Amino acid sequence: MTDALNIALNYAHQNADRFLADLKDVLAIPSISTSDEYKPEVLRAAVWMADQLRGMGIQNVEIMPTSEKGHPVVFGEWLKKPGAPTVLVYGHYDVQPPDPLELWETPPFQPTVRGDKLYARGSSDMKGQVIASLAAIESALKSGQMPVNVKFMLEGEEEIGSEHLGDFIKKNAKKLSADVCINTDAGMIGADHPTITYGLRGLCYMELRVYGPSKDLHSGLFGGTVHNPAQALTELVAGMHDKSGRVTLPGFYKKVRRLTPRERAAFKKLPTTKKFFLEQTGVPALWGEPEFMPNERVGARPTLEVNGLLSGWTALGSKTVLPAYAMAKISCRLVPDQTPEETFKQMQAYLKTKAPKTIRWELISLHDAGTAITDLNGDGVKAMSDGLEKVWGKQPFLVREGGSIGAVVLLQQYAGVESVLTGFGLPEDNVHSPNEHLHLPTWYKGIDALIHFLYNFGK
Amino acid sequence: MTDALNIALNYAHQNADRFLADLKDVLAIPSISTSDEYKPEVLRAAVWMADQLRGMGIQNVEIMPTSEKGHPVVFGEWLKKPGAPTVLVYGHYDVQPPDPLELWETPPFQPTVRGDKLYARGSSDMKGQVIASLAAIESALKSGQMPVNVKFMLEGEEEIGSEHLGDFIKKNAKKLSADVCINTDAGMIGADHPTITYGLRGLCYMELRVYGPSKDLHSGLFGGTVHNPAQALTELVAGMHDKSGRVTLPGFYKKVRRLTPRERAAFKKLPTTKKFFLEQTGVPALWGEPEFMPNERVGARPTLEVNGLLSGWTALGSKTVLPAYAMAKISCRLVPDQTPEETFKQMQAYLKTKAPKTIRWELISLHDAGTAITDLNGDGVKAMSDGLEKVWGKQPFLVREGGSIGAVVLLQQYAGVESVLTGFGLPEDNVHSPNEHLHLPTWYKGIDALIHFLYNFGK
Repeated sequence: MTDALNIALNYAHQNADRFLADLKDVLAIPSISTSDEYKPEVLRAAVWMADQLRGMGIQNVEIMPTSEKGHPVVFGEWLKKPGAPTVLVYGHYDVQPPDPLELWETPPFQPTVRGDKLYARGSSDMKGQVIASLAAIESALKSGQMPVNVKFMLEGEEEIGSEHLGDFIKKNAKKLSADVCINTDAGMIGADHPTITYGLRGLCYMELRVYGPSKDLHSGLFGGTVHNPAQALTELVAGMHDKSGRVTLPGFYKKVRRLTPRERAAFKKLPTTKKFFLEQTGVPALWGEPEFMPNERVGARPTLEVNGLLSGWTALGSKTVLPAYAMAKISCRLVPDQTPEETFKQMQAYLKTKAPKTIRWELISLHDAGTAITDLNGDGVKAMSDGLEKVWGKQPFLVREGGSIGAVVLLQQYAGVESVLTGFGLPEDNVHSPNEHLHLPTWYKGIDALIHFLYNFGK
Repeated sequence: MTDALNIALNYAHQNADRFLADLKDVLAIPSISTSDEYKPEVLRAAVWMADQLRGMGIQNVEIMPTSEKGHPVVFGEWLKKPGAPTVLVYGHYDVQPPDPLELWETPPFQPTVRGDKLYARGSSDMKGQVIASLAAIESALKSGQMPVNVKFMLEGEEEIGSEHLGDFIKKNAKKLSADVCINTDAGMIGADHPTITYGLRGLCYMELRVYGPSKDLHSGLFGGTVHNPAQALTELVAGMHDKSGRVTLPGFYKKVRRLTPRERAAFKKLPTTKKFFLEQTGVPALWGEPEFMPNERVGARPTLEVNGLLSGWTALGSKTVLPAYAMAKISCRLVPDQTPEETFKQMQAYLKTKAPKTIRWELISLHDAGTAITDLNGDGVKAMSDGLEKVWGKQPFLVREGGSIGAVVLLQQYAGVESVLTGFGLPEDNVHSPNEHLHLPTWYKGIDALIHFLYNFGK
């Protein structure tokens, strides 16, 4: 088997440039799932992925619709190793919108290598990660001694909350059955710090709309007589935190699992110190619950963020309008055992108590994701941990992470498949921001680590 | 003189349709002064006004630049009545932006009569009022016995705070000298309530920018570690009012003139009751300083309004961004003896005290206007009051109004010319809002009243 492993690693090294060319090819497709306008491009990315799988020798490749309106899942499988375990490869081929466009140094869908980085929307999150998985499997297949069976589930709705993935997994649970899922969407702490993520935060994303007068008014003729909805919105949103940075929604912390002393000790060892967060964010001072470390606040504490604000006149110059309407996008990151459903109800309860009679309000649920914790003693975690150690020469960090990955929760819930979460994206990759990029040396190491994982897991 | 008055009134009635056609003609020009994009259209409206004046027989018509970047003033004069008093006619030919466009029932620059209303941006504020003044003067000229001399100062920057008008008036004080200015930009309380406005609120319009992380962040990876600038903005803005609706900027009320018992009694008599404001605004309940009536709060109390909010993701759907930046447009309406300069400093002082160290902020002054109070015993007020009474059969209400009209303050300050403020726009005209319109029966009565004013003032 060591021979096969070495053949696979050699193949990967010899094809390094072609893997990069493939990645640039798919990064040029603006598969922005948020907006209907880009629907044809999202489909084009799905077709690209299906063609890629077929080219590798994967069988039964299908572009499977998830719903009438949603984006499809690309499925494929290679099951020619009876008796060997089956690995399900998860990935998403959709990307975040690139706004604000003017801040990109090179166009987001014109992949550009500068130094040892590849710049493009989706390069790190997560087309780069998907191509790394595909490259590892292609290399193992080409060795002639593929150690495992594989299946693929590549979705196109991750950036919009994997809205239809739950139903899809429920309907195709048997087809997706596997011994483990590898999910490389979780990133790593730093280029020298291979990472396995064992906990994920959930998400409850809402839109709060505040309505005042029946139409925009002249602020001179009516200012002082009505509760300005933009002002009322700021009052409601400001009240969602107390002075110490704790969320004030009633019952918000009730179901939050306490961190164990062992977990707190583990957080303390991580390189994600205060200094790390100051450098990564560029803020003048950090903020948040004072009794927790910043990495604990991100990994193991729930939060409430304002993702967007809109009201009235926002272009250059001045318009003396008293706006009829104001809107905030607000999302809560959740930790076990909070649920998005309960959080939404807590927000409704907050608004029912706090909203004044001088305005009307409406709360809309935009998307949800459950929380997740992975068993650290499973075979998948061990195979991945050993693979990462082989390439980086050190044991990976085991962390709880702040993001939400719906697929992890849904695969566990509906198909009984546990995920091993890792990835080769770095905190400084500008994920979801202008100038997103991929650190290529780390990416190539990631391909090697995934090859090791396949042979470890197939032993 | 009565003969001349009747000839002028007859002329106006016979030319009613043509006046309306002229108004529709100039309303079709999108002379939006806020945006550079519309600069050629603003100039086109100036040219239209100049041509119109020349057509009436006005002399020395000039389109006078106010500055390199600003919009011009249209000047003209008719001074063939030595010994008679001189009336300066003020007007503005620029308009507010028509946003949000989708709420207009007919396009804003396609003037449309429905029932007894003319719909178009600027129909009420204030191209309609300007054309009424021009129609009255044309009618008086055509009588062959023009009772007064006239001058015109028609500006193109009223909707952006008359930025260059102060310098223009300073430079042309002699050219603009007159016994009175009539300014029809102040509107009336209702179609049956002719109105002279003797007090105007001033304005201090600011933009508050709050900066957090150096770029947009992923809310999952960083939420809980930095002070979200959108949240910080809501906290700062929410704190600008206390629970009773009073503005909390330090020293804000210090120079506010107290209302006299006589003034409070006059406010009580006005038809602008609580019911009026509820109907005009469509809010579920009124809001504001509880110890003042709504019309006092609009006319004689200073206020602070949020005119715009912008941060992060504001389009459809969800983006889990932790924004780098948040912005609020905020304006204070001021009453004697507040000044915009002091108010701006009070806002700075508030922010210096309240803004946390976790964010950076910046405060920008966008535009200013002083407050104004007119002498109720002047000849101009008397001539206008009698003219309005003649047409409506009742004495006009004397009110203090909530809007700001820079020209009034600047003419007093730099040319020593006092303004008589009236107008034929109604509160329900949707000024600054979609579906702005002009009530035509009131407009025609306004033309008659202005003709009466000319003959009263020239007696």
